[in-house]
Amino acid sequence: MLETLKRQVLEANLALPKHNLVTFTWGNVSAVDRQRDLMVIKPSGVEYSAMTLEDMVVVELESGKVVEGTKKPSSDTDTHRVLYLEFADIGGIVHTHSRHATIWAQAGKDIPAWGTTHADYFYGPIPCTRLMTDEEINGRYEWDTGTVIVETFRQRGISPVDVPAVLVNSHGPFAWGKDADNAVHNAVVLEELAYMGIFSRQLTPQLGEMQQTLLDKHYLRKHGKNAYYGQ
Amino acid sequence: MLETLKRQVLEANLALPKHNLVTFTWGNVSAVDRQRDLMVIKPSGVEYSAMTLEDMVVVELESGKVVEGTKKPSSDTDTHRVLYLEFADIGGIVHTHSRHATIWAQAGKDIPAWGTTHADYFYGPIPCTRLMTDEEINGRYEWDTGTVIVETFRQRGISPVDVPAVLVNSHGPFAWGKDADNAVHNAVVLEELAYMGIFSRQLTPQLGEMQQTLLDKHYLRKHGKNAYYGQ
Amino acid sequence: MLETLKRQVLEANLALPKHNLVTFTWGNVSAVDRQRDLMVIKPSGVEYSAMTLEDMVVVELESGKVVEGTKKPSSDTDTHRVLYLEFADIGGIVHTHSRHATIWAQAGKDIPAWGTTHADYFYGPIPCTRLMTDEEINGRYEWDTGTVIVETFRQRGISPVDVPAVLVNSHGPFAWGKDADNAVHNAVVLEELAYMGIFSRQLTPQLGEMQQTLLDKHYLRKHGKNAYYGQ
Amino acid sequence: MLETLKRQVLEANLALPKHNLVTFTWGNVSAVDRQRDLMVIKPSGVEYSAMTLEDMVVVELESGKVVEGTKKPSSDTDTHRVLYLEFADIGGIVHTHSRHATIWAQAGKDIPAWGTTHADYFYGPIPCTRLMTDEEINGRYEWDTGTVIVETFRQRGISPVDVPAVLVNSHGPFAWGKDADNAVHNAVVLEELAYMGIFSRQLTPQLGEMQQTLLDKHYLRKHGKNAYYGQ
Repeated sequence: MLETLKRQVLEANLALPKHNLVTFTWGNVSAVDRQRDLMVIKPSGVEYSAMTLEDMVVVELESGKVVEGTKKPSSDTDTHRVLYLEFADIGGIVHTHSRHATIWAQAGKDIPAWGTTHADYFYGPIPCTRLMTDEEINGRYEWDTGTVIVETFRQRGISPVDVPAVLVNSHGPFAWGKDADNAVHNAVVLEELAYMGIFSRQLTPQLGEMQQTLLDKHYLRKHGKNAYYGQ
Repeated sequence: MLETLKRQVLEANLALPKHNLVTFTWGNVSAVDRQRDLMVIKPSGVEYSAMTLEDMVVVELESGKVVEGTKKPSSDTDTHRVLYLEFADIGGIVHTHSRHATIWAQAGKDIPAWGTTHADYFYGPIPCTRLMTDEEINGRYEWDTGTVIVETFRQRGISPVDVPAVLVNSHGPFAWGKDADNAVHNAVVLEELAYMGIFSRQLTPQLGEMQQTLLDKHYLRKHGKNAYYGQ
Repeated sequence: MLETLKRQVLEANLALPKHNLVTFTWGNVSAVDRQRDLMVIKPSGVEYSAMTLEDMVVVELESGKVVEGTKKPSSDTDTHRVLYLEFADIGGIVHTHSRHATIWAQAGKDIPAWGTTHADYFYGPIPCTRLMTDEEINGRYEWDTGTVIVETFRQRGISPVDVPAVLVNSHGPFAWGKDADNAVHNAVVLEELAYMGIFSRQLTPQLGEMQQTLLDKHYLRKHGKNAYYGQ
Repeated sequence: MLETLKRQVLEANLALPKHNLVTFTWGNVSAVDRQRDLMVIKPSGVEYSAMTLEDMVVVELESGKVVEGTKKPSSDTDTHRVLYLEFADIGGIVHTHSRHATIWAQAGKDIPAWGTTHADYFYGPIPCTRLMTDEEINGRYEWDTGTVIVETFRQRGISPVDVPAVLVNSHGPFAWGKDADNAVHNAVVLEELAYMGIFSRQLTPQLGEMQQTLLDKHYLRKHGKNAYYGQ
């Protein structure tokens, strides 16, 4: 079942090492079938070089039950589930420990919008979540990694479509998109922004957010109903 | 038409990923035919790995009209047009979001002349433009990205032949040269200078401009009528 | 003798350049046979590209005598011996001058636990040893490089199984694991943590240790008797 | 003539891009025949990918005259000549604008001895020259680039055998060795030290020189009459 989606998820996972986003098996991509409320996700602990279509695991979104696949799904599966359940408009999710996005996550800081590269993809700062409580960590940890992401977007009034990534505090980034490939694309952009942000801030320590007008211009010429760029 | 120029532009575009100057399709190179007032530019949104000679777009310099090619020209076409119209002595232009040049652009700072690598190619600091006004951003944005570059060179009395690159504030670099290949060459050098500058400044925060005599020596032994280096 | 162990040690040594952990011949991996009290180690000064199974050297743990092999064992052999003799639960050791771990060693600082990437592998900060005394340096230098490592773990009450790496002050890292391959794995993780730590600290200079609860969660879900991750 | 030396010089030049020490043609290696007072050096402006044995240029050390070769010798030839004439014990020289060594040169700072990687190859700080005077720059510039290097070593009492590299202020590094290959080896080590030094200093801004005893130990176990390492 879901052969097309499985292939997309496999290819998106294999794109992670190509884009230098992962060390060893530290990353996972999933995609969702909104008709059937099923998601396809990478198995846990399988090397990218040996990964095949048959390794992909199909998981029921609501229950978390594995409905196809012999391998155990990624241990981050519950985080992916929460995001699909709460962010209705996303189709694919990627989690990595990519170096520079993880640096910002470890530092516990949002990545400000500091240039048009950012504005072409993210309509505002990329938020870093609050620290999780001891209860969340000791309880349903992987699930609540998702709920703290959702809380961040809700409390700050950020749309997950407009800002398709987050930094989980002391942990690393999640990025998403309309499908698995688009999620990986956004993860690559996030890593670029994270790299450039570290050193833009070094050159100008009090660097303020970019002009709202320029952020609007670049984001809105590529996204939404008035987009004209790349059409 | 313009087969030779198209080939040069294609090859120069393909050189961008080879020199690690671009992520995805974030870059474009053009070249001009000064006899016919036509420019050849990369199409918008085409992957470098799939780009062919037929994808190149021929654009009329004055009017901006596409006179050959089935693809849409790069969305930065109007910026290229302004630069060709105002900078009479340049033959090729490259725009990228290369990491370290973009870092300086985001930080809103000129790259000072800090060594002979710089002086071999750029006769003085590489300027960063002022921020664009809301009117410019909301009006003819891509065109005025060009006019703000031209203003920067005119107001500061910099010759675009002597300093063949600029940083567009909050955006990224444009570089140019006598042809497309030379523009890419200068974009590579710019990226090197941008990288080295970040850390030279880290080691010596109050680092002043290099000696004028040394800047003269290195620039003038390679450029202009008394050049003797590499001849 | 010890053909399987030799092959593991050879492959682990060849993995060092693949993971960009070494320049020239600056690195060595060994593994131990606990039944026979023998270790297999890389020869001194042989290029990775030319290294064969026959080059591996078998050394008696207690005496340091070469019992098989025509080449001279790595000059760090005595450090490896001390670690095997004192850390009863380790099976493989790797020494490199990998860039970012060496940067922390040269700076004389522990690498704090600043994120879940760290917590997945190291149960607390990665310690940097004290400076060695003139007597130690001028005496049994390579041997006492080992004793100062052991002293660091004993005095601070750190288990070498829970924290499988150390920074030797003004020198560079040693990492270890249950076998040679696992030691290399930990050396790669160490290098990632060292890189990310430099810039996490740059972004947040007063960055405190990560939450103990989160450190416990990530370390203990992968290690020890209650591990459930990746099972 | 000098076929063996030419081959060594060619191979050493081709090693520069392999070790990521050069961009475009920004580097040159030479070697000397002490019996005949001749040096072999890379031609000026030839691409590494197209360089052949026949391109190598033979230059008379004393006079600077080209005695074999159809190409123009590297424009840095006179700097190489001074170093061979004044540093009697060196056999090969390499000049690059390698990124991190050039960063220190641009910052105008010595690279302190901060670890055993340094001590294994350089017996003390790698000096940065004083700025050249206007007279030197406008006069025999390339020749006096050599004399200012020699002055640096003489005034500070540094032996060029013990410290086989220098940073020319506002310019970049020269490294040397017993032959062309060894000079390239030292240039690679220099680049590693330069990289690590930037960030060791970032982690510990007031970092002092490493212990003299440790510097002695590492340098002297590999160099000089009491060396025992790697023998």
